[in-house]
Amino acid sequence: MVGISEYIAIVSAVIGLIYAVILIRYILSRDPGTEKMQELANYVKQGANAFLRREYIWITPVAIILAAVISLTVKPYGLVALGFAIGAAFSALAGYIGMSMTVRSSSRTAEAGRKGMDSALMVAFRGGSVLGMTVPGLALLGLAIFYLFVPQPAAVVGFGFGASVIAMFVRVGGGIYTKAADLGADIAGKIEAGIPEDDPRNPGVIADNVGDNVGDCAGMGADVYESYIVTALAAILLGTLVFEGGSVFGVSRPDLVPYPLVIGGMGVLASIAGGLAVRGAKRGKAMAALNRGLYVAAIIASILDVVVTLYLFSFDLKFAYAMAGAVILGLVVVIVIEAVTDYYTSYRFGPTKAIAEASQTGSATNFLSGFATGLKSAAPIALILVVAIAISYSLGNWAVGASCSPNTICSAGVYTTSITTMSMLSLTGIILSIDAFGPITDNANGIVEMAGIEGVREVTDELDAIGNTTKATTKGFAIGSAALAALSLFIAYQSEVSAAYLNHGVTNPPEYVLSDPLLLIGLLIGGLLPFYFSSFLIGAVGKAGFKMVNEIRRQFNEIPGLREGKASPDYEKCVDISTRAALRELVAPGALAILTPIIVGVVLGPVALGGVLIGSVVSGVFFALMMANAGAAWDNAKKYIETGMYGGKGTPTHAAAVSGDTVGDPFKDTAGPSINSLIKVLNTISIVFVLVFVMLHL
Amino acid sequence: MVGISEYIAIVSAVIGLIYAVILIRYILSRDPGTEKMQELANYVKQGANAFLRREYIWITPVAIILAAVISLTVKPYGLVALGFAIGAAFSALAGYIGMSMTVRSSSRTAEAGRKGMDSALMVAFRGGSVLGMTVPGLALLGLAIFYLFVPQPAAVVGFGFGASVIAMFVRVGGGIYTKAADLGADIAGKIEAGIPEDDPRNPGVIADNVGDNVGDCAGMGADVYESYIVTALAAILLGTLVFEGGSVFGVSRPDLVPYPLVIGGMGVLASIAGGLAVRGAKRGKAMAALNRGLYVAAIIASILDVVVTLYLFSFDLKFAYAMAGAVILGLVVVIVIEAVTDYYTSYRFGPTKAIAEASQTGSATNFLSGFATGLKSAAPIALILVVAIAISYSLGNWAVGASCSPNTICSAGVYTTSITTMSMLSLTGIILSIDAFGPITDNANGIVEMAGIEGVREVTDELDAIGNTTKATTKGFAIGSAALAALSLFIAYQSEVSAAYLNHGVTNPPEYVLSDPLLLIGLLIGGLLPFYFSSFLIGAVGKAGFKMVNEIRRQFNEIPGLREGKASPDYEKCVDISTRAALRELVAPGALAILTPIIVGVVLGPVALGGVLIGSVVSGVFFALMMANAGAAWDNAKKYIETGMYGGKGTPTHAAAVSGDTVGDPFKDTAGPSINSLIKVLNTISIVFVLVFVMLHL
Repeated sequence: MVGISEYIAIVSAVIGLIYAVILIRYILSRDPGTEKMQELANYVKQGANAFLRREYIWITPVAIILAAVISLTVKPYGLVALGFAIGAAFSALAGYIGMSMTVRSSSRTAEAGRKGMDSALMVAFRGGSVLGMTVPGLALLGLAIFYLFVPQPAAVVGFGFGASVIAMFVRVGGGIYTKAADLGADIAGKIEAGIPEDDPRNPGVIADNVGDNVGDCAGMGADVYESYIVTALAAILLGTLVFEGGSVFGVSRPDLVPYPLVIGGMGVLASIAGGLAVRGAKRGKAMAALNRGLYVAAIIASILDVVVTLYLFSFDLKFAYAMAGAVILGLVVVIVIEAVTDYYTSYRFGPTKAIAEASQTGSATNFLSGFATGLKSAAPIALILVVAIAISYSLGNWAVGASCSPNTICSAGVYTTSITTMSMLSLTGIILSIDAFGPITDNANGIVEMAGIEGVREVTDELDAIGNTTKATTKGFAIGSAALAALSLFIAYQSEVSAAYLNHGVTNPPEYVLSDPLLLIGLLIGGLLPFYFSSFLIGAVGKAGFKMVNEIRRQFNEIPGLREGKASPDYEKCVDISTRAALRELVAPGALAILTPIIVGVVLGPVALGGVLIGSVVSGVFFALMMANAGAAWDNAKKYIETGMYGGKGTPTHAAAVSGDTVGDPFKDTAGPSINSLIKVLNTISIVFVLVFVMLHL
Repeated sequence: MVGISEYIAIVSAVIGLIYAVILIRYILSRDPGTEKMQELANYVKQGANAFLRREYIWITPVAIILAAVISLTVKPYGLVALGFAIGAAFSALAGYIGMSMTVRSSSRTAEAGRKGMDSALMVAFRGGSVLGMTVPGLALLGLAIFYLFVPQPAAVVGFGFGASVIAMFVRVGGGIYTKAADLGADIAGKIEAGIPEDDPRNPGVIADNVGDNVGDCAGMGADVYESYIVTALAAILLGTLVFEGGSVFGVSRPDLVPYPLVIGGMGVLASIAGGLAVRGAKRGKAMAALNRGLYVAAIIASILDVVVTLYLFSFDLKFAYAMAGAVILGLVVVIVIEAVTDYYTSYRFGPTKAIAEASQTGSATNFLSGFATGLKSAAPIALILVVAIAISYSLGNWAVGASCSPNTICSAGVYTTSITTMSMLSLTGIILSIDAFGPITDNANGIVEMAGIEGVREVTDELDAIGNTTKATTKGFAIGSAALAALSLFIAYQSEVSAAYLNHGVTNPPEYVLSDPLLLIGLLIGGLLPFYFSSFLIGAVGKAGFKMVNEIRRQFNEIPGLREGKASPDYEKCVDISTRAALRELVAPGALAILTPIIVGVVLGPVALGGVLIGSVVSGVFFALMMANAGAAWDNAKKYIETGMYGGKGTPTHAAAVSGDTVGDPFKDTAGPSINSLIKVLNTISIVFVLVFVMLHL
């Protein structure tokens, strides 16, 4: 049944996209609130759209140059570039649609808050679900249709690269934007001018709210879209080793190569079911409703996955059981990572409480405590990933009865590992819904504050706090899945290199043995990259935030009556500063990420490049986890103190916690998540240009 | 000429030790200052001795258990354990002698300051030189005599392990001690009670001064001693591949296996010459005198090394040139790393100035700026290491005309790499002299302040500031050389694993190929270790510092007249708290470092363990550099502001910089340097127990 996997994927994707349209209609039919609320939401919408538009315009020439280079150098000529264009365009489209709805959902969430917790939560969650459905829907649709017409795994590579390039720039650009605005508004407004957060007198407040959307919605969406695509790509490439040529099953089954897309499709359906289970939220227990959605989605996904897997692999039941096991493992990993991240970053538990306690002796001890917590949190997640790799790999080898010698790639084992990763990412729909819930509730709370709406604050405050937690836990998902995706991509890279050598008559392609100094050099360069890359991003937030501080100070000094609330600030000027700064500061880290693998590949060759890929994962994943979790823990330690602990707001203890939160912002929202994009883009570039590098080093 | 290398090494080591005795007599002949100064120095001496004694007592049972385990499991039975005992005992002895002199040199430096800069610098430098001469002297003497009687590289392994275990505990214990005391004294004394640094009313001030000695002197000494030993060990093990069996030169030349000890010997002689060139220091330019010492030592070492290398390898001139090139390269690397570290951490240059500037907007921006600087500083040092590996490896292969296929170890190339590392470490004498200068001048300045001596402050202030810089730059040396040492050890580990397999009749020993999931799992575990390990250390400093704060608060509250200077504080109580805390908090990270390789080796086998070794270097070296350099840069940014920039002391800008300095303390003095010990001890344990692991996984 050639094409059945693609058709299942296409049907599921279309169902997901139709559901997204239903959600859009639902959101637009809600009451957008008072005129003041609409006006404020409109400022944010305009700022966010303007940024995304300018960012896309900025990326276009880079994308065109890359597409041209690919067209001329990478076979199958043209098709890879076509895949690149579709992969990139769909990423941009998904981000645009998703963000269009988050900016429209915030005032509606605020307005729904008047009717109670359940209404507000439904609007916010469904608003976020548009991104949640669009990302896997478009990714799957694009991949499946493309593969149906061009059933060549090599051509799909372009698709992944397109997704990577967009994600790289949108993630990094959004990350710099959001925290430059946040830092500037906090320092010049909250700390210096002494006005509350989200006060309409603060000229940076709109830029701050725009930042939540371009960072946590568009940036996160592009990041996960990329992970989704590249994982599917890696699984497809590795699938050719298992299903083609008949070396594993005796018969060649190329129709099963696109099987990973089926897993994606089942995840879309399960995410819809999970989303529908998010209802009936009560005051004080709203988080339970979101968690229910995640659990329902995971359970439905595992049932659907098992059924379809047993059906597709009915010709070899042992293999079918192994695949089903690998898929369920992926779903379990998602749940466990979410729980562990919650433990380390929520103030219901010890680690974050300890940070709050340490704030009593000042910002230095607050900082050290949060930093140590971030470092510690990487350990259980590393253990989860390691155990997942080990179990999944063993399942594949058990199924085909392979007694792999230590020196050969066991194709079945590495294939099941990539399927476990694909299974994790199949929950993208529900995860992104929960994530994009964050900027909506954050903005809704801001609008309530700015428009001075009475009686809703309790509802939106709780939603905002929950949004903070979900943003943190979904980052754990994004980093963990990116790490596994990168490992799958690396295996795919290796097999592409070997194939390229074989095609040129070299029967002993290079191996990646640690005694080879080129590999060690590559590992060291790769290990350095996340650190060096982060230094640019953290520096960029500092520089851009400094400019924002100066602009806000200027407005307070030069606009008479602003401080007293009698005059309006110039929001646009601040939005413009963030926009320009984000785009300018994008250049250096972007160039670093794109040029490093090309230079290493050309100068040192494919073995050293392999070292770079693995080295970046080995240091990057823990560094990213540390930054993401420390940042979230600082944020929540501050919130814990704001509940009245250790004297609450206005105390030196609170000031120390605010300082830790400010440090944590670029950690968790700029540098940490950007490392995801870095380690993936390194891999996709390497795979795209693998032939070029091999030719130069034959 | 069997034994010539050993004899050259022994004679050089003895000359070094005799010079150390001359220095000791010189120091003891200086005027120890007024009675008050002597009394204060005596407190520090007693505290430091007490800590080191208790630490050694604490380590002894661990060492005995390990020695017993080694005696029973590792061949050649008994001899390895003997090496272990000598390696450990000499490390402890060198640390004890070195520290005995630093605590005696401080009051003498202060007193010499009355006569001027040159006298004070001479006393401080020569006091530090005792450690500088004792460490390589004892290391070389022990190794050479042991090898002369037991010319079995396998037995020397125990020597390295002994050095590692001591270094692990002394580095970590000293690191926790020094910063717990510093943090506590700063927060409760400087910040809360508002009394100046080094004020005798502060109950924690003696513990703080003790900490400088046990951390920067004993800890650094044990760390570098370990690097020295394990690098020699790795070079000796790799030398057997080149010189034994005749595969490279046609004849077997086992007499050349201990050649690395000759390089060490020349370094001792050159360091004496360099030390003698440290004189004629003028006010405001004291740093130049120290730099002159380093340059003279490097030049003399390169001349001596070239002469002796050309002589020993005269039977193959091409090889001799390659070796001479590798040696000179190592010396150049030391100079360049020192210069780069200086650039990133001294306030004469942009990066540290930028941190000071960022302090104007508070502790959060100060922190982010310093963190970004630390991250950025890792890049040039990574590049230096990568280039050094590439050049050195190429030299070796060029010499033997090997066209190594990508999949085989090129023994000549990896050997020259280990010789480059040995050459770096041959400058240990002068480097440790410059490093131990730091705690002496720091304590001297403290004694001047506490004893209220007039007219010397300008001299000791300048020396103290220089000591700060030298402590930072020598850390760059320690981390860089530890990384290269670990890589050499890893290659040695690989060849030991292969030999073990071959001895058991397995002709295709495992390779460390990146497509092997066990290797990937190992790499991830190894990559995690530096982060997880650091979380314990930073947490430990926080916890111990908190206890110290409470004790100092208690004394201020309960001892009448203390605040007014009419009563004496209970220094001993604070010393005791630091001591107990350091020893207790040592347990978890120590167990993590020792048990992880054993568990991985037993459960997952030698390939996964190889991954752990490399993974820990790939993430650890950059993380360590980041922490060490960020810490030093924060410290100096604060000092820059104290020169009057941005309003100087007492401003909010200064307060923010003090906060950054407090964060940087455990970064640069506890966690950062401890990672050195971690990555080395992982390697030595793995090499010691390699046979056990292989037997379990045959």
